[in-house]
Amino acid sequence: MTSGMNGAQSLLRTLVDHDVDVCFTNPGTSEMHFVAALDGEPRMQAVLGLFEGVVTGAADGYARMSGKPAATLLHLGPGLGNGVANLHNARRAHVPMINIVGDHATYHQALDAPLQSDIGTLAANFSAWVRESASTADLGAHAAEAVVAARTHPGQIATLVLPADVSWSAGGVPAARREIPGPRSPRGDAVDLVAKALRTGTPAALLVGNDVVGDDHALATANAIAIATGAKLLAEVFPQRLRRGAGIAPVERLGYLAEFAAMQLDGLAHLVLVGAQSPVSFFAYPERASDLVPDGCEVHTLSERRESGVEAIAALAEALGVDPKGAQLAGAARPGRPTGDLTAPVLADAVGAVLPEAAIVVDEAQTGGIYLSPATGGCPPHDWLTLTGGSIGFGMPAATGAAIACPDRPVLNLQADGSAMYTMQSLWTQARHGLDVTTVILANRSYAILNLELSRVGVEQPGPVALSMLDLTHPDLDFCSVARGLGVPAERPTDAESLTAAIERAIAEPGPHLIEAVVPSGF
Amino acid sequence: MTSGMNGAQSLLRTLVDHDVDVCFTNPGTSEMHFVAALDGEPRMQAVLGLFEGVVTGAADGYARMSGKPAATLLHLGPGLGNGVANLHNARRAHVPMINIVGDHATYHQALDAPLQSDIGTLAANFSAWVRESASTADLGAHAAEAVVAARTHPGQIATLVLPADVSWSAGGVPAARREIPGPRSPRGDAVDLVAKALRTGTPAALLVGNDVVGDDHALATANAIAIATGAKLLAEVFPQRLRRGAGIAPVERLGYLAEFAAMQLDGLAHLVLVGAQSPVSFFAYPERASDLVPDGCEVHTLSERRESGVEAIAALAEALGVDPKGAQLAGAARPGRPTGDLTAPVLADAVGAVLPEAAIVVDEAQTGGIYLSPATGGCPPHDWLTLTGGSIGFGMPAATGAAIACPDRPVLNLQADGSAMYTMQSLWTQARHGLDVTTVILANRSYAILNLELSRVGVEQPGPVALSMLDLTHPDLDFCSVARGLGVPAERPTDAESLTAAIERAIAEPGPHLIEAVVPSGF
Repeated sequence: MTSGMNGAQSLLRTLVDHDVDVCFTNPGTSEMHFVAALDGEPRMQAVLGLFEGVVTGAADGYARMSGKPAATLLHLGPGLGNGVANLHNARRAHVPMINIVGDHATYHQALDAPLQSDIGTLAANFSAWVRESASTADLGAHAAEAVVAARTHPGQIATLVLPADVSWSAGGVPAARREIPGPRSPRGDAVDLVAKALRTGTPAALLVGNDVVGDDHALATANAIAIATGAKLLAEVFPQRLRRGAGIAPVERLGYLAEFAAMQLDGLAHLVLVGAQSPVSFFAYPERASDLVPDGCEVHTLSERRESGVEAIAALAEALGVDPKGAQLAGAARPGRPTGDLTAPVLADAVGAVLPEAAIVVDEAQTGGIYLSPATGGCPPHDWLTLTGGSIGFGMPAATGAAIACPDRPVLNLQADGSAMYTMQSLWTQARHGLDVTTVILANRSYAILNLELSRVGVEQPGPVALSMLDLTHPDLDFCSVARGLGVPAERPTDAESLTAAIERAIAEPGPHLIEAVVPSGF
Repeated sequence: MTSGMNGAQSLLRTLVDHDVDVCFTNPGTSEMHFVAALDGEPRMQAVLGLFEGVVTGAADGYARMSGKPAATLLHLGPGLGNGVANLHNARRAHVPMINIVGDHATYHQALDAPLQSDIGTLAANFSAWVRESASTADLGAHAAEAVVAARTHPGQIATLVLPADVSWSAGGVPAARREIPGPRSPRGDAVDLVAKALRTGTPAALLVGNDVVGDDHALATANAIAIATGAKLLAEVFPQRLRRGAGIAPVERLGYLAEFAAMQLDGLAHLVLVGAQSPVSFFAYPERASDLVPDGCEVHTLSERRESGVEAIAALAEALGVDPKGAQLAGAARPGRPTGDLTAPVLADAVGAVLPEAAIVVDEAQTGGIYLSPATGGCPPHDWLTLTGGSIGFGMPAATGAAIACPDRPVLNLQADGSAMYTMQSLWTQARHGLDVTTVILANRSYAILNLELSRVGVEQPGPVALSMLDLTHPDLDFCSVARGLGVPAERPTDAESLTAAIERAIAEPGPHLIEAVVPSGF
């Protein structure tokens, strides 16, 4: 049976039939049949990025906000390589994603043409599922498999390598819609053991992972459990998507700096993991422990990541007889509009003063952002997306993808300057699609975090060469000029009042805006 | 025996003792001891890039012009990932390079911290040599091994993975200087067989690789052989570094488009490879051959890439009794200064009219650059660097590295707009170091090559969605604004006269400049 479709057409049809209806693209010659097939499948929205790190980061942001995978379209090994850093963040975020990586025609690969490389080695770095499709007739089925793999709880990266001839040949067969298995239920004995530990009244903490922090009811339930049992409620350092704001139960994130996290965990007798990883130091430091679990603290796994944390928290509440209504939700509160010079606390207050309802905050503010959390905890309900994998260059693409997923919600990208330089091409995609993204560049004109880390790893007196490697001056970056060059209007307010007004105005006006806030380092 | 050095210090000492004295860096926390050690080793020049694709592309350009490896300093798997695309180009250029990739401390790796990933899988994509150094005492020896691997003819990529604790621990031992083996000599029987084939007088061609096209005398010898035997003299589509201009023997490059290359090779009875790859189509196309060797043509390998092509050509000349003085060298000639509207031929004439002696041309002009070669063949002697691996985003970093290698030579980067968007952060490094790089953006405002490829792969009537994936308008990119934001002065001349004057002026003035030339697509 042939369908009259070529491979690319059957692939697109299969993807949209499985609700994969956004494709972030940066195509080349080997992807031209896929590109050509887009016009025949209007249910698929194609979004061009001018660099692959934009494409993969956007697919991550999209998945975090839509709860479902986007496809990416990438050009052979080098195109995939350019996407690796944000694929790393996406892997650590446990989001679903489907990469379509074009490859040379099957018979062309042995000729070692200039763009030939070993794509599988790259894909192995971040993919839970990799397949090179070798037959047009099977491509649809492979695409369906990729969707199932990507959507396997909590979300994984599936990479489908697509040789050009498999794409262009006739005989494509779209695959029938496949069932997506739900998350596994947590084990009952784990619930009982944790309930028993929490009833002892010894110092305990719940460390909750992505599916709990992304769900208002699960957060409230966890909060009620914490209140009823005296346990602390903690979230991971970098959650995928954190629900927060007035009317939502607050949760304290573990500190990025191991010293702070150690204080948060100090004295615990029980640490309960709910789809979360046992806490470890972000980096190793000489003479300091990497494992942050205090001596003598017992670690319990209420649920693994592949299990439903939402269900686990509900089961735990039931086992403990805790009513979710006992949660203490965040009250509505905003800082006043700040005045005076631009500083990191002022920037945080400016955001807190104007953050609108249903905002999506993409936080790659790094050191400049340490005051943001307290300043915004009582703002109207919003989502907070963070740098899950620690690979910088996440914020601007993720904001782009989040805006594609939620076109009716304002997106605020709080973006450190050094990190912005990796994927600033995102602004062009925001301009092309008129996305409501407000980018605030926190320009401290250095890799400030490295100045901090330099002393933390034991370098006492760095010399001028070392310091020049962490310094973003000589010349200063002018982000307004860069943004305008990429089609996004920009301004550089110079005091608290004008910054606050600029953020407010940028959010209110349609389309993307960039605001460069030159603030001294937060440290 | 301990040296009083830590690992990082012994590594730096070993590198500079082996003449590796430039390090392109984009460091993170795990590389802080290497960064701190830079001040103690002033023989090492450190050059910061704000994105890893800049770092690896610069190391490629540096190696092409200096003939020796630079080191790169990259941050774990994601940092290496961002460098992969230009590492691909460097691999296909057969340049020497040494990547130092920081990793978590050895004992930290099992904890699966957020930046943990499988670095080896990424490195395998492009490295001829990979080693994770697990002991501080052995690090110096591993670095020396990396240098030997990198400098093994014709040049390879060596990747040394450096765990943070191996770097910071005491007990580093610099390695004694190791001998670098020279290239192998070609086999005598190969020389005899080729000489015999060329004496038959049947249609033949010499296809010469990087070491011949980078050497004036070898080029002249090959040219003299061609004249004496009636053979054609051809170079690969994308040579690493091509010597050309007045007083140098000209060589015709194979066409990028398979149709053109097929015409160049049509009717050959003998094709002689001199450290070159047998010609294949860049991409596969439906119903067209991928292998470009004509039916009935016998392929001879005079020398493999690992052998000395220079020696092979000399031996062949001797076997044939050909005097290199019989070469026909290019005469001095320049096009007149062009007049009128900006077009691709006008741009080529503008370059030809003003290209200075000893210029280094970094050519990522793509479709807009097809008129450059004839317009510049009679300019004063210069070097021409091309996109060896086909992975776009090469030009601006390579120009940066070439300028670091040759601070007294003018660098002219002829740069397609779509490709420029991948690594435009290079401009900041050019500004920081005051490099004499003139970037001419050929802004046709599309992925013009893909418009061409779309029809070549058989897509007859692309729809509006497909075409929008190849289009760089909506909004237009303003490269002058982007360049100024990165610290580089820029202008956008609007006719032939002002373009020519702008190029001339930019080359004459110290420091980097960018010129945006809005030209219609070359096709």
